[in-house]
Amino acid sequence: MRGPDRLRLQDLRTAMTAAGLDAAVTVMPENVYYAAGTLILTTWDIPHRLALGVFPNGGEPALIVCDIEEPQARAESWVQDIRGYVEYAQSPIDMLADVLKEKGLAQKQVGTELSYLAAIYYERLKHLLPDLKLVRSESVWDGLRQIKSPEEVALLKHAANVTEQAIYDAWSAAQIGSTEKDIVVDIDARQLRLGADSLAFSVLGIGSHTLQGHPHPGPKRLERGETMRVDIGAKYDGYYSDVARVAVGGQPTERQRDIYKKLRDIQRGTIAMMKPGVRACDVFQHCLRGFQQVGLPIKMPHVGHSIGIVLHEAPMIEPGNSAELKAGMVINIEPLYKDPSVAAYHLEDLVHITPSGPVILSDHNNTEEMFVIE
Amino acid sequence: MRGPDRLRLQDLRTAMTAAGLDAAVTVMPENVYYAAGTLILTTWDIPHRLALGVFPNGGEPALIVCDIEEPQARAESWVQDIRGYVEYAQSPIDMLADVLKEKGLAQKQVGTELSYLAAIYYERLKHLLPDLKLVRSESVWDGLRQIKSPEEVALLKHAANVTEQAIYDAWSAAQIGSTEKDIVVDIDARQLRLGADSLAFSVLGIGSHTLQGHPHPGPKRLERGETMRVDIGAKYDGYYSDVARVAVGGQPTERQRDIYKKLRDIQRGTIAMMKPGVRACDVFQHCLRGFQQVGLPIKMPHVGHSIGIVLHEAPMIEPGNSAELKAGMVINIEPLYKDPSVAAYHLEDLVHITPSGPVILSDHNNTEEMFVIE
Repeated sequence: MRGPDRLRLQDLRTAMTAAGLDAAVTVMPENVYYAAGTLILTTWDIPHRLALGVFPNGGEPALIVCDIEEPQARAESWVQDIRGYVEYAQSPIDMLADVLKEKGLAQKQVGTELSYLAAIYYERLKHLLPDLKLVRSESVWDGLRQIKSPEEVALLKHAANVTEQAIYDAWSAAQIGSTEKDIVVDIDARQLRLGADSLAFSVLGIGSHTLQGHPHPGPKRLERGETMRVDIGAKYDGYYSDVARVAVGGQPTERQRDIYKKLRDIQRGTIAMMKPGVRACDVFQHCLRGFQQVGLPIKMPHVGHSIGIVLHEAPMIEPGNSAELKAGMVINIEPLYKDPSVAAYHLEDLVHITPSGPVILSDHNNTEEMFVIE
Repeated sequence: MRGPDRLRLQDLRTAMTAAGLDAAVTVMPENVYYAAGTLILTTWDIPHRLALGVFPNGGEPALIVCDIEEPQARAESWVQDIRGYVEYAQSPIDMLADVLKEKGLAQKQVGTELSYLAAIYYERLKHLLPDLKLVRSESVWDGLRQIKSPEEVALLKHAANVTEQAIYDAWSAAQIGSTEKDIVVDIDARQLRLGADSLAFSVLGIGSHTLQGHPHPGPKRLERGETMRVDIGAKYDGYYSDVARVAVGGQPTERQRDIYKKLRDIQRGTIAMMKPGVRACDVFQHCLRGFQQVGLPIKMPHVGHSIGIVLHEAPMIEPGNSAELKAGMVINIEPLYKDPSVAAYHLEDLVHITPSGPVILSDHNNTEEMFVIE
């Protein structure tokens, strides 16, 4: 794994100071990766195998990992002070309490991701360190991660393009009569061959199956006149791709062509306004008005999201979010329209917010018309 | 998705009664799948999109899901009372509190997975329902899930066999000079083509890279005389496979052959004692003694684990676990030996505990000798 740019500790310290934190303890594997440069994959499949990063606001950081993962952490991370615990025999939270005491932080203001840390660990930590002032720190990490470095932008662009290419290549190989499962397997295998490290989600449905939020691909065959919706993501060096596209079996009907054209125009109109200083809620409302103006009912809690080492990052493009777009953000815009009882149309592209305006990073295959599978 | 057998509600109620619970609220997506029959995949990539199952000990259950997932939940689940919340606008935990009040459970003993539920949700629930007696319920679910139905055993056997087949097929296609990345992509693509719904983890390393707990496959090429370790898992209808194997570039040296033979004998000797009534800790100690008797140092916190819709399920085969094996359990046994500075040897197979003793479900390709890649 190449990993992201090594986090400039100074940026983290500035953010901690602004948030009034004496230290940040990160429990989210994504933030451990971001801050310490080591991606401990087993944390997802074996959640009790916590990996914890301790970043004092001044002073040396420490990493606490299951000793099974210690050789990897030592090989990958720039953090020198790595401490391994023995699974079942030792508690990572007890080790964390010791580290916080050792660093003089046991009575300080310490931030952690309380939307991730499970209740039993939270209770244990409060029990071990009753004077610890434990607060949420998600916004510190969100704030750092939302501005992408040029290397991160390049990686996200590469990720999106590989996933797009895999979709179009698999669609070119598909035909009327191919099953959902056949096509999704082909897309996924192509993503891996083109360089994805792992698959994240592979949503694919045909016809009314697309109306489910995230349909599992099954034995349904593509028939002439039906549309197919894909919403596919994989991971590249820990960074997500996330691309949605629509294809059609045979030439589209006028109605299908009309809906698709409207959806694409709404998406492009929304993207066009994404300049630094525009509020996320205003982007949402603009998209909503786009649907209303062409008479398509919409029911979406959000129409886009930032993306990086977390799939849905801040800022979310949702009606309650007054955060302003900033240069350096990378945001997916993904309007979805459900033609009642018939099919869902979904188009999702990756947008880089630059000082001079939005730049679409995906879409290296033209999306002006639906892809036709014959 | 076929999904597991519909949970017999009576079994859950019996387990709740034994645990003194008036209701079980499940927040783990795996247990929601187990109990309600719907697998809401986005819960993994978008953790705040909680899916909650409410199972009163008597009375009708309810499901709370993000309304994006509601069509899928309605299509898949047998639970009738499904309630959708709007992401960002409504809180699933507030909706849960309302459901608990409505069902007269607001002051009752309610179990949930506090090793999964994040601290902010835990605090919010306690705030909304200060008289709720909230306790842990993991053991209720672990107890139900640890005995597999014949359909679950068949699914786990199928999953393991597909992963094994993909490994051997990819190894047969590999050659001296193939890279870690080449080979893992081939294994993964084959798993998908052979029927895996998604990939879970794909650990593969060559030579000393295998000494890392979970090495990320990279550009390292297989050279003659080097061993390769794989530890691969995918998901089939929500159920995991998990298979570890060792191959060698060219004919093995005497030392390589000797280490591998010892490891396999230790594994088979350990499996042979896995009969109903034997304690998990005794299986661990037997395996440990196996290593000691042939002079191989071992440092493993566990040597195996039950497997199902969770990768590491109860019972874990670890020294502190005095739980007894029972007929119907399906357990992976995976001794690992690290030849210092050279390579790790790892062999993992799936064992069904039957009334008459252990039956190996994986291993349809013979593991007596290391696979030779020429």
